[in-house]
Amino acid sequence: MSLLDDTIASIEAPDAEAARGAGARLDALTKPPGSLGYLEEIVRRYAAIRHDPAALAGRGMITLFAGDHGIAAAGVSAYPQAVTVEMLRNIGAGGAAISVLARRLGFDLIVTDVGVATDTSAAPMTGVRYRRMGAGTRNFLEGPAMSLGQARSAIEVGIETAREARANGATLIGIGEMGIANSTPAAAILAALSEVAPARLAGRGTGIDDRGLGRKIAAIEAGLKIHRASFGDGVSLLAAIGGFEIAAMTGVCLGAAAVRVPVVVDGFIATAAAAAAEKLRPGLREQMFFAHRSAEGGHALALEALGARAILDLGMRLGEGSGAAIAMSVIQAALALFHEMATFASAGVSRKIE
Amino acid sequence: MSLLDDTIASIEAPDAEAARGAGARLDALTKPPGSLGYLEEIVRRYAAIRHDPAALAGRGMITLFAGDHGIAAAGVSAYPQAVTVEMLRNIGAGGAAISVLARRLGFDLIVTDVGVATDTSAAPMTGVRYRRMGAGTRNFLEGPAMSLGQARSAIEVGIETAREARANGATLIGIGEMGIANSTPAAAILAALSEVAPARLAGRGTGIDDRGLGRKIAAIEAGLKIHRASFGDGVSLLAAIGGFEIAAMTGVCLGAAAVRVPVVVDGFIATAAAAAAEKLRPGLREQMFFAHRSAEGGHALALEALGARAILDLGMRLGEGSGAAIAMSVIQAALALFHEMATFASAGVSRKIE
Repeated sequence: MSLLDDTIASIEAPDAEAARGAGARLDALTKPPGSLGYLEEIVRRYAAIRHDPAALAGRGMITLFAGDHGIAAAGVSAYPQAVTVEMLRNIGAGGAAISVLARRLGFDLIVTDVGVATDTSAAPMTGVRYRRMGAGTRNFLEGPAMSLGQARSAIEVGIETAREARANGATLIGIGEMGIANSTPAAAILAALSEVAPARLAGRGTGIDDRGLGRKIAAIEAGLKIHRASFGDGVSLLAAIGGFEIAAMTGVCLGAAAVRVPVVVDGFIATAAAAAAEKLRPGLREQMFFAHRSAEGGHALALEALGARAILDLGMRLGEGSGAAIAMSVIQAALALFHEMATFASAGVSRKIE
Repeated sequence: MSLLDDTIASIEAPDAEAARGAGARLDALTKPPGSLGYLEEIVRRYAAIRHDPAALAGRGMITLFAGDHGIAAAGVSAYPQAVTVEMLRNIGAGGAAISVLARRLGFDLIVTDVGVATDTSAAPMTGVRYRRMGAGTRNFLEGPAMSLGQARSAIEVGIETAREARANGATLIGIGEMGIANSTPAAAILAALSEVAPARLAGRGTGIDDRGLGRKIAAIEAGLKIHRASFGDGVSLLAAIGGFEIAAMTGVCLGAAAVRVPVVVDGFIATAAAAAAEKLRPGLREQMFFAHRSAEGGHALALEALGARAILDLGMRLGEGSGAAIAMSVIQAALALFHEMATFASAGVSRKIE
């Protein structure tokens, strides 16, 4: 079997018994039962995904993948394609939002070029790894964005990244991305996997104007029509209308679940990757946290289609894993409460009047 | 003039020019304009309150006040009054939720007994300061909860705490509380200051049952009827139906604004203190951040009455400043982004296509 098939086959369901064990301790802590709200649910879910009622906390790691998109030629982004490589350099050099957040919040950051249009691997950028599938995808209006082999390889880069993160002590993995025009394939994937119309899923991305938004919706609708026959399977769907970085994030979702590590899904683009992972392994959404509700119009609909609750709602729409990083700090705080709070018994605090 | 009158007189409006200055830098950072969402608004507001377009960041400090309430005798809480002093000991010893969060997130924590029923000042608890106004307030069904002098003194303890925090380098001050039964005076204050009915503002607090909730609503309605004549002024209102810890938090709101430091208001009880501060100095709400929307039923209504946007919505209802602590970490992350992100010019990243 391939790494991908192997990984999917090895994913277990979350452990409800571990969640119950963690819940029992939560109720013994010096607070009214349930008063930490969703933080308590976070701890229970973490315990279940980790199959560990003790919910031991390790390092948090953010995995970021960058790629370019043939569909950019259709004029669907407010920024030139050169920004992908420019921002990749900025991220590696420590000047991007995700660089600041990872540093500030104490998370490791692994940045991988999975297929940026400009090949810089001969003179590698600081802080960037190279696992290139090509110099950007093809325009999905002119054929599949990538071959099936490229799609599998991109997914497997994500699986390997998740395994490596786990081997380095990560017990929480965020996914983020950089890729000019990638809200177009993301919206196409989400439309292909749900009943939601492209016009409702397509948003302004980095800030495109009305005419650009019209081009974007038309491109998605055309892409869906051209490639409809490929949507029955997650790999062929990603090959048809996906992106290298989206497929890699899908791989992280699968690979992390296989090593019992919860994934923290960033915003709109990362949610498309999560939806593709759910397609490849139904039920996988239970093994992920959804970091925030993005300001990108269709994100709330995409979360709803996945039955997902977002941790934060800060109106962010930057990508890069920036929302995931902040949500990961909330998750780590919830785990610290679980581990470090006193119990009613240990602190000698009276219980509720019954 | 008194410290209170002096403080109120010295409060300036936020500096819109500083907000504009910070906004100009935000737009130069390597991200699509506005894509950090509410984090950008946080930076602009912080700059305005600090009168500092550079939005320099200092320490974050959480101020927590504990007091007891005569109205507890009316059977309005799910926990016995002894829990206030027991939890105060737990907080000081490092075992409470706020102790864990302050330690974990890197905030200073100042804990002050402003009038717990059990006087422990002869054998002081670790990590607790004593500024006691009495051994709990009186039952507001039998007269004013405290004297006007006690109310002013409690407010001034808060003002002094804010000044001390600023002197120790704080540029962000959270407010939190501990006091069995204090969601009853908080709901009474919020009802007195808004058009919202007590039955909609009174919630289950630490988890009271239906009969207890009925007693709670009846107590608030009776208190409002008895003390209505005192509601024209913030000090007499706090004296009539307030609590020592609520008045102290009101003082922090005033004192922090006077030294140009933003306050981060925790949940339901702290919002009542903020509403009283707004009563004492109209417009003061502009100088505060509201940390989260609590699960306590009336909190959303109270925030709406203040025109406030909450940073987080995690279903928390613990108090102690626990929601404030998490929101403060979001604010500090926003400031780190502002200070540490590269600009388009410095990173050589292309601008938007115009």
